[in-house]
Amino acid sequence: MIKNFDLNSYLILKRKNVNAFIDEILNNTANSSRIVQAMHYSLMAGGKRIRPILCMAASEAVGGNADDILPAACAIEMLHTYSLIHDDLPAMDNDDLRRGKPTCHVAFDEATAILAGDALLTLAFRILSSINVIDDNTSSNWLKVIHKLSFAAGYNGMIEGQMRDMASEGSLLSLEKLEDMHSLKTGALIEASIFSGALLGGGSPKQIDQLKIYAKNIGLAFQVADDILNVEGDPAVMGKAAGTDNARGKTTYPSIMGLNKSKEFAKKLIHNALQALDDFDNNSNSLRAIACYIIERER
Amino acid sequence: MIKNFDLNSYLILKRKNVNAFIDEILNNTANSSRIVQAMHYSLMAGGKRIRPILCMAASEAVGGNADDILPAACAIEMLHTYSLIHDDLPAMDNDDLRRGKPTCHVAFDEATAILAGDALLTLAFRILSSINVIDDNTSSNWLKVIHKLSFAAGYNGMIEGQMRDMASEGSLLSLEKLEDMHSLKTGALIEASIFSGALLGGGSPKQIDQLKIYAKNIGLAFQVADDILNVEGDPAVMGKAAGTDNARGKTTYPSIMGLNKSKEFAKKLIHNALQALDDFDNNSNSLRAIACYIIERER
Repeated sequence: MIKNFDLNSYLILKRKNVNAFIDEILNNTANSSRIVQAMHYSLMAGGKRIRPILCMAASEAVGGNADDILPAACAIEMLHTYSLIHDDLPAMDNDDLRRGKPTCHVAFDEATAILAGDALLTLAFRILSSINVIDDNTSSNWLKVIHKLSFAAGYNGMIEGQMRDMASEGSLLSLEKLEDMHSLKTGALIEASIFSGALLGGGSPKQIDQLKIYAKNIGLAFQVADDILNVEGDPAVMGKAAGTDNARGKTTYPSIMGLNKSKEFAKKLIHNALQALDDFDNNSNSLRAIACYIIERER
Repeated sequence: MIKNFDLNSYLILKRKNVNAFIDEILNNTANSSRIVQAMHYSLMAGGKRIRPILCMAASEAVGGNADDILPAACAIEMLHTYSLIHDDLPAMDNDDLRRGKPTCHVAFDEATAILAGDALLTLAFRILSSINVIDDNTSSNWLKVIHKLSFAAGYNGMIEGQMRDMASEGSLLSLEKLEDMHSLKTGALIEASIFSGALLGGGSPKQIDQLKIYAKNIGLAFQVADDILNVEGDPAVMGKAAGTDNARGKTTYPSIMGLNKSKEFAKKLIHNALQALDDFDNNSNSLRAIACYIIERER
């Protein structure tokens, strides 16, 4: 725990802001089109909002105002949610439940789920380009954010990660290949989220470099912790079944290095992440607290 | 035909430029990842490149240089290609052939096709934000283009059009509902293509307004012509079966107003489009010639 920092209240407040912004953007009502209902359903299905909160916390860490970059934070949550909807599809991971609720293609139908994912991906870029540009410098920074996020989410990042994840099911990966796969599938977007917050918050190149180290470490720790939870987590708390990785023959950190070594590894990564923040002031306490939360969470 | 304008050579040259740029971006080789191969396969499956060419021609019509906006033109082709890959999926239109070749999910597999579509959609925005910004004004114009295209391709445009198209199969639409559906499904992206070219080419607000009228008319004419081709086109030339709309119970212009009235309607739309160009000089001859081509083409 970070002294004098109430992470729980921080997460609740940020989630509230993210949810309010998403609600405003989608303007979901009973009369909304089916596609908007499906988008809203998946966006509001109880996500932890880790990526948008990291984006806002990174902005604060460099002295920025988190509310100013709410559009970027919410666009990132849309990118994340689109990827979940598509990964859950019958042709991919074929998951019926996500966070304890029917997945989008179960609650609606397959065609609607594909299009709702497409629509969220597209909406992310609409939001990122909707900014009332205050000055010319702002405008070029938002272009850089769009570039970073589209790179991270694309065929050199998240999508290639999902391709490798599917290809590897049932075969044993080396530790190196497992790390590459996670770095593409989840690491790239987490890094891009933190980069976006830091750039838009006015971070210096040196600060942005340090935050990249922070991001790399917590991104990997997040995955190691997920793998650990899949072994020993409580299904009732997680809102999803445990033990599924093993049943599917997925290579995980516990399957390669065992449960105890995986926990040590996750702690070491968090230690590295915290070290990268050494030159930052108390404004980065939220980032510090989130790093600890990543390996302590129960879902 | 527009006097002294060789549309055929113009189309060949522009297609060559578009294809070269796409090849360079994707850097497709035998060693490329499966996802890049699938993206390349669908991008190079013989598209007419109408949207990127309209984008470049609109830029020329306002005095811009078409080569300067090749990134925008190619990004638009990627948006179009992604939508074809997803529309062809088993959960949507379930088409095995496109332009005479196996569709992406047939040539690869369903999961790869979903992700290849996602990757093309994402890549479009990466390209649009990759610009070496020359001055601050350029940067804000590219943001505007991203906004326009993401709006047109999203749940208020192309995606809603596909939702309505699927929902309407087997039921008779009114002329008004048919026009709404096409305006969303294909019109919005065609309009955004022309807007993008005109804005990046340095068009005045008045020129952009006139080009919007041009775009609305050719967008609709394009669809009417497609419906006519589906009735009387030569499958060998089109690279796809004829008569499919009727077999699927789709409402089309010929099914509502008959074949002859549909042809008259298409001509009237092209007349309106040409009229919108009255105040433009000879630099808009390519746009004029394309308007005529839209209802004269055989595929």
